[in-house]
Amino acid sequence: MAAGYRVAVVGATGVVGEAMLEILAESALPLAEVFALASERSAGETVHCGGAELRVGELAKFDFSRADIALSSAGATVSAEFAPRAVGAGCVVIDNSSQFRYDREIPLVVPEVNPHAVAGHRGIIANPNCSTIQLVVALKPLYDAAGLARVNVCTYQSVSGAGRRAVTELAEQSAALLNGRPAQTSGGAKQAAFNAVPHIDVFQDNGYTREEMKIVWETRKILEDETIRINATAVRVPVFYGHSEAVHLETRDKLSAAEALEILAGAPGVSVIDEHKPGGYPTAASDAANRNQVFVGRVREDISHPNGLNLWVVSDNVRKGAALNSVQIAEVLAGEGVGLRKTA
Amino acid sequence: MAAGYRVAVVGATGVVGEAMLEILAESALPLAEVFALASERSAGETVHCGGAELRVGELAKFDFSRADIALSSAGATVSAEFAPRAVGAGCVVIDNSSQFRYDREIPLVVPEVNPHAVAGHRGIIANPNCSTIQLVVALKPLYDAAGLARVNVCTYQSVSGAGRRAVTELAEQSAALLNGRPAQTSGGAKQAAFNAVPHIDVFQDNGYTREEMKIVWETRKILEDETIRINATAVRVPVFYGHSEAVHLETRDKLSAAEALEILAGAPGVSVIDEHKPGGYPTAASDAANRNQVFVGRVREDISHPNGLNLWVVSDNVRKGAALNSVQIAEVLAGEGVGLRKTA
Repeated sequence: MAAGYRVAVVGATGVVGEAMLEILAESALPLAEVFALASERSAGETVHCGGAELRVGELAKFDFSRADIALSSAGATVSAEFAPRAVGAGCVVIDNSSQFRYDREIPLVVPEVNPHAVAGHRGIIANPNCSTIQLVVALKPLYDAAGLARVNVCTYQSVSGAGRRAVTELAEQSAALLNGRPAQTSGGAKQAAFNAVPHIDVFQDNGYTREEMKIVWETRKILEDETIRINATAVRVPVFYGHSEAVHLETRDKLSAAEALEILAGAPGVSVIDEHKPGGYPTAASDAANRNQVFVGRVREDISHPNGLNLWVVSDNVRKGAALNSVQIAEVLAGEGVGLRKTA
Repeated sequence: MAAGYRVAVVGATGVVGEAMLEILAESALPLAEVFALASERSAGETVHCGGAELRVGELAKFDFSRADIALSSAGATVSAEFAPRAVGAGCVVIDNSSQFRYDREIPLVVPEVNPHAVAGHRGIIANPNCSTIQLVVALKPLYDAAGLARVNVCTYQSVSGAGRRAVTELAEQSAALLNGRPAQTSGGAKQAAFNAVPHIDVFQDNGYTREEMKIVWETRKILEDETIRINATAVRVPVFYGHSEAVHLETRDKLSAAEALEILAGAPGVSVIDEHKPGGYPTAASDAANRNQVFVGRVREDISHPNGLNLWVVSDNVRKGAALNSVQIAEVLAGEGVGLRKTA
């Protein structure tokens, strides 16, 4: 066995798990061994990690003393069950579900924004929601420069955020409609193809969806500022990979568009594409899909507020929004060596 | 010839012109004769108005003394040329281009909102931009109830707003990509299919696009209130028919979500779909396409502002956003008889 970390990828057959394996293979993280884990239904399948073929093991039967780090992208219920067991066996869990995100004792980390938060972990580190991650990567440098009083974000979210079945469904519905057949939908949902659907995750008592409230809760926790007022509208659009966000913010001190652009151009993880011409802005399909950065464009002063700024923020929700961010958290942990065993 | 109005439809072979002919045939407006007009290139084609087949005449050669009303959906340059000629011949022009909208002397009319404005016309009445029309139909009753300090709107606009070629292009690009072929684009544009593109019409000096500024200029003109602060982000999404808008507004007096819902439910031209469950909101493809109303849902109090409200506003951009609104203006004119001749 090579020197390095033994990493278990939980949910290895999903869209995010597959990306985790790919990004792990590209990562500078020294790997001793990689385990691909999934539910009983998917156990026995084959997945890829770089050039290696891995046979998928069954999560319920896995002995977590064999792993140092678990990168998990299973559902909240699955995480609630396995994570304490993994932590008990000495494994650090980086969890991509919403199960632990709102627990005050559990760090919620975006490495470009609050890497210091990993220091306090007790075995579990939560990975934020995809729509939050790209938002805070763009907001953090502006927050540091001028403070943030209020954020209003409207999302244009790709179907891959809802998993592999939603990706297939968009392709199937699109093909059916282009061929003059009706789109098949399920569970009262509106068609995803050639439509814009303002409903992601379940409705809350205040009329927001849980996806919208995740943006509110997580942005405040990651920026460590409960005074920021946040409003969100989360909308699914017929895009396969990459979330876009129209972000309107009010800084505490005035920032000009030119100042904001300069700050963003120097910010970690951010790529600016901003020219006032056709194509002079990032888009999900043409720029962000399969890339690691958070792309920002359409930076302009909001004519409706003296301290207002508008941004268009685009990133690959499966990579930076999930898999890449989890691997980056593992890299931070490895760099700091906090609470992490390493197989010599 | 039957008693009624002689109506010329300019741009009769376009997406909007076709809908104008269809809606005219359904309208209560008494029709004596309908002329279909287009450029030299399309002259001679056949179009339909109800059960009737019409041969398309050439706009440049048409004698407007033969028509009482012209419903125009040609481009701004075409309108600039023919409209004065038509007015000179005694015809009232209801123009769907941006050519005359910002002229203080020319009424800009949405019949549910400011029908009284037609009274001052001097031969030309402008039809607002599609994204503005559905917005002001939803805003007007709330404005009357509580005033409006600020409006922030993010659009999810369908490709039909860019004309028939854009509709074909979305279908072609989608089919190509689903079959593993690249999407053909032109003029530096990003692909429309499976993407979200924050660019409609040309860029202005302030970094907004002209489509975004149209929403600002036209909303203030139609609501007759230059004090409303408006911010807009206009985005094209891969939807064929129907624009959606995430609208965030700050009323001058507090309105609860329940009060707003009650007001909207009783407002002219508005249909409310608002239940906190899957499908309990309007969408472009499933609800608005081929319908006449402006649909409103997702009504909720904005947790980031004491007087904030969020709405999701959806309407068929070709019908209410263009053709239907033009025919409704003609109906208002006919009802009031202002400056309109009628063939006995």
